[in-house]
Amino acid sequence: MRLYDHPASGNCLKPRILLRQLGLAFEPVTLDLFRRETRTPEHMGRNPDGRVPVLELDGGETIPESGAILLFLAEDTPFLPDDRLARAVVHQWMFFEQNQIEAQLAVARFLVLTGRGEAHPELLEALLARGRGSLASLARGLADERPFIAGDDYTVADIALYAYVHCAGEAGADPHEHAPIPGWLERVEATPGFVNDLAPFPEHARA
Amino acid sequence: MRLYDHPASGNCLKPRILLRQLGLAFEPVTLDLFRRETRTPEHMGRNPDGRVPVLELDGGETIPESGAILLFLAEDTPFLPDDRLARAVVHQWMFFEQNQIEAQLAVARFLVLTGRGEAHPELLEALLARGRGSLASLARGLADERPFIAGDDYTVADIALYAYVHCAGEAGADPHEHAPIPGWLERVEATPGFVNDLAPFPEHARA
Repeated sequence: MRLYDHPASGNCLKPRILLRQLGLAFEPVTLDLFRRETRTPEHMGRNPDGRVPVLELDGGETIPESGAILLFLAEDTPFLPDDRLARAVVHQWMFFEQNQIEAQLAVARFLVLTGRGEAHPELLEALLARGRGSLASLARGLADERPFIAGDDYTVADIALYAYVHCAGEAGADPHEHAPIPGWLERVEATPGFVNDLAPFPEHARA
Repeated sequence: MRLYDHPASGNCLKPRILLRQLGLAFEPVTLDLFRRETRTPEHMGRNPDGRVPVLELDGGETIPESGAILLFLAEDTPFLPDDRLARAVVHQWMFFEQNQIEAQLAVARFLVLTGRGEAHPELLEALLARGRGSLASLARGLADERPFIAGDDYTVADIALYAYVHCAGEAGADPHEHAPIPGWLERVEATPGFVNDLAPFPEHARA
C-alpha cells in the first residue's frame, strides 16, 4: 500500500498510527501541500478535493479522507467493534472530530503555524472560541471515567481525535485545561505500537 | 424511535429523509436551538456536544451526529453498500461533507440567516470562499456522468451532501454554478419517497 502523505498533517498522522499498530507495511509518498502538490490534476484524480491523506491499495484503488481510511483499515480488527450500536458510537466521535475539532482547531493551527493568523485575527479568534467549546464537549464525552472515547476499548475514534487534540495547544487552545483529556491522551499514547511522528511545519510554510 | 430535531437544520433534515425513505415511523421532538434548548444538562446527557439531531432508540439508547445516525439506519439496506471498498467511497463523501461542506456552508448560512454575518464580514467571506471550493470538489466527484456521488446507486452519502448543498445559495454560494451539481440535486429529489421539508429560520433566530 501507498500513503499519499504529509509529515506535518494531523489528518495524515491518523492512518500512519493505525497502519503501524496493525503491522501493515506502507510506502509513504510526501506531497508538499505548502507548495500545492496536492492540487495537481494527477492528485485530483486520486482525490477530487485535492488533499492528503489518500491511501492507494495494491490494486490501484484510492481512498481519500482520513476517516474513510481508518474505517476501511479497521474493518474486522479490534480497532472497530462489530456491534451496530457500538460502531455508531465510534462513528459519532469520528464525525464530531471532522466537523468540530478538525474544522476548528486544525484550521486555527494552520493559521498560527503559517503566520496567516496575524492578518486574520477575527477568523482565528472565532475558530479558537469554537475549538475550546469542542474540547469541552470531548471532555464531557470522556467523563464517567471511561478509558477511551467509545468505552473500554481503544478504537479508530481515539486515533481520529488524538491527531488534532494532542497538538491543540499549538493553535492556542490548551487541551490540558479540560480535565479528563490529559489522562486520555496518555492512555492513547500507551497503546501497543503507538507512534506519534507528527513533524513540525517546514520553514517554507510561513506565508 | 424518537428524533431530537429542528425543522430548519440541514443536519436534522438528513435523518428525516432517510427515516421516511426507509418507511420507519418516528416521533420528532423539536428542540429550539435558537433558544439554546440543545444545551440543557438533559440534552447534554444525550449528546455531550449539545446539538441535534439525536436519534433515540426504543430501548433508550441515543445516537448523536447526523452521519452516525445515517450509517446506523442504513446498515443492511440498499442505502449503504456491503462491499468494503464501495462503503469506503460512501464514508469518504460523508466525512468530506462534515469537514468541508457543513463546516463552511452550514456555518455561513447560519451567519447569513441569523443576521450575524453583518458583524463578521471577514469570517463570512472566508467561509464562503472555502465553501465555493468545496462545491467545486463535489462537482469533480460527480464528473464522468456518475448518477450519484458513490456511483450508480443512491446512498446515504447523497443524503448527507444534499442537506447543505441544495440550500447553499442561501449562504451566498450558488450550487448551480458548478456544472454536474444541479442534475445530481434533481436525481436525489426524484428518488422514491424523498421529502425535503427543511423549514425557514424562525423570526426569533435573528440576533
